[in-house]
Amino acid sequence: MPVGLGPLPVLHPVPGFRLGIASAGIKRAGRKDVVIMEAAEGSSIAGVFTLNAFCAAPVTLCRQHLGQSPRYLLVNTGNANAGTGNPGMQAALKTCAALAELVGVDSKQVLPFSTGVIGELLPADKVIGALPAALENLDENNWAQAAEGIMTTDTLPKGVSRQITLAGETVTVTGISKGAGMIKPNMATMLGYIATDAKVAQPVLQGLLREAADLSFNRITIDGDTSTNDCCMLIATGQTQAVEITEAAGEDYTLLADTIKAVMLELAQAIVRDGEGATKFVTVQVNGGNNRDECLDVGYAISHSPLIKTALFASDPNWGRILAAVGRAGVPDLDVEKIDVYLDQACITRNGGRAEEYTEAQGAAIMAQAEITIRIELGRGEHSETLWTTDLSHEYVRINAEYRT
Amino acid sequence: MPVGLGPLPVLHPVPGFRLGIASAGIKRAGRKDVVIMEAAEGSSIAGVFTLNAFCAAPVTLCRQHLGQSPRYLLVNTGNANAGTGNPGMQAALKTCAALAELVGVDSKQVLPFSTGVIGELLPADKVIGALPAALENLDENNWAQAAEGIMTTDTLPKGVSRQITLAGETVTVTGISKGAGMIKPNMATMLGYIATDAKVAQPVLQGLLREAADLSFNRITIDGDTSTNDCCMLIATGQTQAVEITEAAGEDYTLLADTIKAVMLELAQAIVRDGEGATKFVTVQVNGGNNRDECLDVGYAISHSPLIKTALFASDPNWGRILAAVGRAGVPDLDVEKIDVYLDQACITRNGGRAEEYTEAQGAAIMAQAEITIRIELGRGEHSETLWTTDLSHEYVRINAEYRT
Repeated sequence: MPVGLGPLPVLHPVPGFRLGIASAGIKRAGRKDVVIMEAAEGSSIAGVFTLNAFCAAPVTLCRQHLGQSPRYLLVNTGNANAGTGNPGMQAALKTCAALAELVGVDSKQVLPFSTGVIGELLPADKVIGALPAALENLDENNWAQAAEGIMTTDTLPKGVSRQITLAGETVTVTGISKGAGMIKPNMATMLGYIATDAKVAQPVLQGLLREAADLSFNRITIDGDTSTNDCCMLIATGQTQAVEITEAAGEDYTLLADTIKAVMLELAQAIVRDGEGATKFVTVQVNGGNNRDECLDVGYAISHSPLIKTALFASDPNWGRILAAVGRAGVPDLDVEKIDVYLDQACITRNGGRAEEYTEAQGAAIMAQAEITIRIELGRGEHSETLWTTDLSHEYVRINAEYRT
Repeated sequence: MPVGLGPLPVLHPVPGFRLGIASAGIKRAGRKDVVIMEAAEGSSIAGVFTLNAFCAAPVTLCRQHLGQSPRYLLVNTGNANAGTGNPGMQAALKTCAALAELVGVDSKQVLPFSTGVIGELLPADKVIGALPAALENLDENNWAQAAEGIMTTDTLPKGVSRQITLAGETVTVTGISKGAGMIKPNMATMLGYIATDAKVAQPVLQGLLREAADLSFNRITIDGDTSTNDCCMLIATGQTQAVEITEAAGEDYTLLADTIKAVMLELAQAIVRDGEGATKFVTVQVNGGNNRDECLDVGYAISHSPLIKTALFASDPNWGRILAAVGRAGVPDLDVEKIDVYLDQACITRNGGRAEEYTEAQGAAIMAQAEITIRIELGRGEHSETLWTTDLSHEYVRINAEYRT
């Protein structure tokens, strides 16, 4: 059961951005497994992609096509088209060419995305067969359907929408995401699509995306396994009447950047809330580090520790496991006598030893909550980093022993 | 159920090394939880210890006492005396002093070891109360009893013994180990004790231990969690009539070094075979790397991946997850088209894509075995590294959701 994740909120349409959904029967007949997204002419599109060296064929193509004025995004689930070598690349190219011909653009203006089983060749003909129906279905009001169309082991669709006022005009930022396992994004998540009708040139948009991804999708982890198919795309259609947003735009730039960050953070957290087998939503906050990397090292050591994750599942305030993870995180010259550990507001370890006022009952009450913050005070500098993760449950093992990624 | 681990073999006594076991009732009344080991005067003792910054009080003391001609090793289970601050250090000192007084040595000649729950103060008086009985029990023939006396979540005791001939004299190497969870040793395992009656000076012995630990205890991982209490000790009593072994001893040195490595490797593998919830014993071999570190990075990415571990548990030849782990291991400029992946002798991926001759039935048959080798050929250099690990089962989650380390 997802932790604190409800039904989709209202997802405001983004002028100039249409979405169409269809069923290609890739893994299961009748399942909505193909999504086309169309960005109006003149849109800027930015993307960040997995750093996994075994990146999937569609990821390689996306990187190449991103600079070619892309207009269409073609997403399929049920097959990741990863580890498929040259035949996989040919299959991806074929789907791009087919869509390009149907809509009258160059095939390099199509960005392909695949998610699902690794190591099986994409059934390109099935995808191509579904394109006319998906194009027929294109509509600015289809965000919710598209959020469902990109799901794999997700139990709930994920979408976030915000509206802001830029120079007197209403501007929308709407996004959807998917992913529940093989989640430790490295520059992006499994799949995330965020669109706005703001007017933003591509290089500025790319900067906005990179910064927001670093604070959202690049700060979540479910199982530490970076996917071969991670992609996160930010599209600006420029259909608003508001002026173009540049870095010189001051308050307006900051407002748009903050809104994009907020939307992406909520989308990223939704992935954690719906993590495979998750029963807890855990915020890991590391303060007082000398630099970003050592805060992240400590944060990931905690977030990936199977012993901490099983203790979270058991609601066991087993803080010895937290200390052990901090101690093995590889921070140079770590002075354990300066370290405080908190569960929510309760100090459990002060100066490296058990806090005098801490009681087991206090810890047990906090660990029983569905949402928990583990806070580490390193006491050696001014840097802070925050990660979000889940517990490790029987259900995680069951899902991944039964499902083939 | 441990994988391929039977009852203890014959453990030959080591002249000059006696072991005594007693019950202090630290965690449960009646359990054998205190072991004293006595090395005859003139013995050399070498040790390697956890690199976890939150190392336990006894580890800190061991490091200090190692250079003080130690004679006695005092081990307790049921309490790790870690994360206990200054009171924990006082408790450890008190037990050393009590034993030293009973046997008439300086308290710095006692090396203390603790394993069990982290974060609770060691009940020093209980340990001290058990010392007379343990001393009374000292005997060269007590290796098997000591192997049981140091167990925590282990399901079977672990011991290995070899005899070799050095300069016409029979020399024995016998060792015991324990550990089943929080296992990714970093310079040592939870606890390992190996003794020989060979004559070896301390600096030479320390070199032998470090080299053997690097190829044995430092190449196993169950859950990636380096313990706060890892210690591995090598004792040479020098009671043999054979000549002293130095690095200049040529063949004899090599024979002793190889025997120590073999004993330690089998002890380390025994820990993996008895890993928490283990149903598979997995060898991860990475060949063709440019250097040691990149081979280890790939090996650990595979060994720690929850997705690969759950696939191993399910006997699912899900090689896409193996590719994904190799791809995210952080090897610079990795050319995926040079990578071959084998399950035992079956090539499943050649040049980064599915091998043509590979069949799903072949993979399924291998994955159904209790012992499996995953071999990665990076195709970029001459370095190789081998790790040993386990799967991730429901039982692992159950044990760690119920047991408090």
